[in-house]
Parts: sequence; C-alpha cells; structure tokens
Amino acid sequence: MFPRQMTILGVGLLGGSLGLAARSAFPQCKIIGYGHRRQTLEKAIEIGAIDAPETDPAASVEGSDLVILCTPVGIFESLLKQIGPSLSAGALVTDVGSTKRSVANLAESILPKNVDFIASHPIAGSEKRGVEFSRADLFANQLCILTPTAKTNPKVLDKMEGFWRSLAMRIVRINPEDHDRLLADVSHLPHLLAAALVAMQEDAGLDLCGKGFLDTTRIAGGDGGLWRDIFLDNADNLKAGLRRLQAQFLAVEKMLDAKNADALRDWLDAAAKRREKVLDKKLREINPD
Amino acid sequence: MFPRQMTILGVGLLGGSLGLAARSAFPQCKIIGYGHRRQTLEKAIEIGAIDAPETDPAASVEGSDLVILCTPVGIFESLLKQIGPSLSAGALVTDVGSTKRSVANLAESILPKNVDFIASHPIAGSEKRGVEFSRADLFANQLCILTPTAKTNPKVLDKMEGFWRSLAMRIVRINPEDHDRLLADVSHLPHLLAAALVAMQEDAGLDLCGKGFLDTTRIAGGDGGLWRDIFLDNADNLKAGLRRLQAQFLAVEKMLDAKNADALRDWLDAAAKRREKVLDKKLREINPD
Repeated sequence: MFPRQMTILGVGLLGGSLGLAARSAFPQCKIIGYGHRRQTLEKAIEIGAIDAPETDPAASVEGSDLVILCTPVGIFESLLKQIGPSLSAGALVTDVGSTKRSVANLAESILPKNVDFIASHPIAGSEKRGVEFSRADLFANQLCILTPTAKTNPKVLDKMEGFWRSLAMRIVRINPEDHDRLLADVSHLPHLLAAALVAMQEDAGLDLCGKGFLDTTRIAGGDGGLWRDIFLDNADNLKAGLRRLQAQFLAVEKMLDAKNADALRDWLDAAAKRREKVLDKKLREINPD
Repeated sequence: MFPRQMTILGVGLLGGSLGLAARSAFPQCKIIGYGHRRQTLEKAIEIGAIDAPETDPAASVEGSDLVILCTPVGIFESLLKQIGPSLSAGALVTDVGSTKRSVANLAESILPKNVDFIASHPIAGSEKRGVEFSRADLFANQLCILTPTAKTNPKVLDKMEGFWRSLAMRIVRINPEDHDRLLADVSHLPHLLAAALVAMQEDAGLDLCGKGFLDTTRIAGGDGGLWRDIFLDNADNLKAGLRRLQAQFLAVEKMLDAKNADALRDWLDAAAKRREKVLDKKLREINPD
C-alpha cells in the first residue's frame, strides 16, 4: 500500500485540504502534520486533516514513505536541509509549490540519493488563508502538473501520478522550464495585475466599484508572503510576461490614438471569444458529465 | 404618476432588465422598446420586458414622459438627433451609459429646450449579452451614479433619483469629469487588463489555467462593440490609468531586481487588505441586513 504513512509539511489551506483528501482516498494511511504553530496543528487534528502533530520537521518525516512540502516556496531550501537526514530510504518527496525550477534543483542537490523527488503542482487553491478553510474536494477534477527532469525515475513518476489520481486529479507532465514560463503568464502575472489594480486606485473610485472589479481583483486577496516567494522565485518569467502584456497595452493605445474603432472591437471580441473557449473547456473538465 | 409611459432605447441585457424592473415597480406604466432587430423586440415582449415594440427611434419616444438610452454609447449622438424632435414637452431623458462627459454635452447641445436630460450610470451588468439574460433584480441594492451639471434643474434631478430609487438602487451624485476619471480606473481599465491578459497568453498556458485566471478575466467576456465605444469615449482617462498602473509595475520590478522580499510582501499584503475592506463594504451594501 502506498502511502502507508505520509507527512504534510505545512498545514495551511492546501496542506489541510491535502490531508482531508488523502484520508478519504487512503483511510489506512497515517498522516503526520508539521507546523510551527501549535494552534494550527490542533485545528488540523480537530478537522481530521492530520493524525499526529509535529513541530520538528526532521522528526515529522521519520518512517514516512510519502513527504509533501506544502509551505511557501521560500522556505523549501531550509526544510529540505532539515528533513534530508531523517528521510527513510526509498521515501518519495514531492511539493505543491507554484514554481518548479528551483525546487527540482534544490531537491536534487540537497536530498540523499536513496530517496526520490518529483515536483508537483496541483492547480487548486483559494484566496482564503488557513487550515480552517480546508476542503476534502479542493483537488477533485483539477489539474496536477508534474515536472520530471532527466534524472527522474519513470517508475517513481508513475507512482507519484498514481497518488494524485487517487485524489481525482487529472495529470499533465511538463518540464520545469516550460511550467514556470507558462504559469507565470496564467497565474503569477494575473496576481501581480490584480494587486497593482487595487494599489493604483483612488479611495473615491473604490467606493464606486462593481462586481467586475471585485472579480478581477479576487486573487489579490491571497497571502502576501506566499506570493512574494513565488514572485521572487519566478522573477525572470514574471518580468518577461509583463513585457508582453505591455506590448498589448501599447497596441491598444495606438488604436485609441488613431480612433481605430474596428481594430479595437476586433481586439476586444477576440479576447472575449478566446476566454469563452477556455472557460468551456475548463467547465467540461471540472464537470465531466 | 411618473413614469406614465417610458421608452427604452435598446433592449439588450440592460434595457431588458430595466423593463422588467420598471414593470415591477410601476405596473401601470406602458413600456415601449426600441430596437433594430425584430427578433430581439419579440423576445423582449415574450419575457415581459416591454409592452410595445418599435423599430423607429423617433416614433418610439412619442408621448413618453421618461426616455432611457440603453444602447452602446457610440450611437448616442445619432439617437439623440433622431428622437429630439419627437420628444414630448417636459419629457425626462436619461441613459445608462458607462461614460458621462460626452452624453451630457451631446444632450445639452442636441435636445430641445423643453425637455430635461440627466445622465445616469447604474452600476449593474453582466458579461452576458442579449435580452434573454435580463433579470428584474439586476439593479436592486446596486449603486446608480447621477452626474448633474451646472445646467441641471434640481427638481428634475430629484425626480430622476426617485425613479432609480424605485428600482431599489442607491444613489450617488458626482460631476461628469470625476465620474469618467474614477470609472476609468475601477471599470474600464480592469476590462482592458482582462482582455490584454487573455490576448498575451500562449495556448499551452491557457490549458493550464485555474479558477484564478478565469475570475480575473471574466469581464473580458463582455461585448466588444459596447466596450470599444467606452474605451474610445474615455480614452484620455483610460490612458492616464494605464500610466499609473505601469508605475505600480515599475515599483514591483524594482523590488524583484533588488530581491527586496519585505517590500514585496508589504505591497502584496497592502493590496490584499485594501481589497478586503472594499469587499466587506460592498457586501454590506448589497446585503444590508
């Protein structure tokens, strides 16, 4: 049986939801939760997300055959160094971080040779923070991106996929470089935009905003520390995305200056149509019936 | 009784919803709908949004004491010229457009002196298009901005406010200049951003997007022709908003280049906190109990 014992490092919304989902899929599996706040760990036990609390990362991974990093990516390096010596031979280590180049490099240089690492990125989450918002169905029918490298053992990759499939996730394999570039565009840049859009407003304007503004800026409600780590880790791609976004702005400004009504309507209609296609596809994926 | 007979010029989602809401508030009022498509007018009658269809704008306003322009703002000039000579003495004309400087100027120069014009902007809508998506409660508990000018008769302004209050709207008075500047920031610029964010994506990235991307870009699903008109009419404010947004981008890029983790987290947390405050306020307004 795999996993027989799993450790969740970081029991926030994602870690807590992972515990709930894993408990449902693997009722026999023992789930250990590491966190630095006693209160969070107690809440995680109370909602059934973990069986045993642990405030020492090294101790938390002892005997586990699956170890999942659910903290902000900024502390992955420190965590990997702490858990490395305590990992069981043959343990599978993964993460749920939003950037994949750095963690793959860190794991390959820090972890002992007798354990395996496969980077994972389940596309699931919420702007809400904290284990109390955990949901057992957070991952169901969502996408999980795995980013194997040249050093990845294909059998271990299959094992990792099997775990995520057990949580009803759909799997995509991409290399870490493409992952970080594409996710910068569809996830990290939208977050930057949403926050910038809030930051540039006058108070008087915010009083007049409608549902559109609130939807557009919803993701800006996320945890600042978490997104700070993602932005810093993926800064090159984020900046490249900003360049391409600004090229779109420039094109629109030219249409405005030239009062080119047809070009402007075509540009707007093309965006509306493209988004609708994406939405239709996503809705079919999420509700397959 | 006011209104005794009203004309809705343009029966799309907004015009249709206005008809449904007015019918509920003023059961005795006759509602005439102008549109250039027979099929749309028939649908509007079928759902109960209008009583009588009319394909000639001038004929549609004859005998009405309230006339509401619900078409894209780009055809306001042509419509006002067509209806001017047919308006009844003492008629009150308004609109539901998203920009207010131009329509106020047009109305004051085009309409006859024996009618009144007050510009209105009910903050309500949807990315859906067409009369079939009309909802009687689209306006309930939402904000309606009125933009009186130096020439506005205070009694007529009260009368106009009374109409919108009858549809359960909350009223704010702002001058047309402030309206267009603030709405550029909280409504028109977010639309531009959402469309640009869709336009700059790689297809491979769109396959990986999550709910965050779909929410951030929801408003980009709106009608291209409608938003084209708004962008062109409010181009100066839209461009000024883009400048201030780009100043935010530049500040973030500097934090990224300097790896200034604290400043970046503070910037992100400030945006999250500010948005939460706005959301709380809006939720209290929309659900007053």
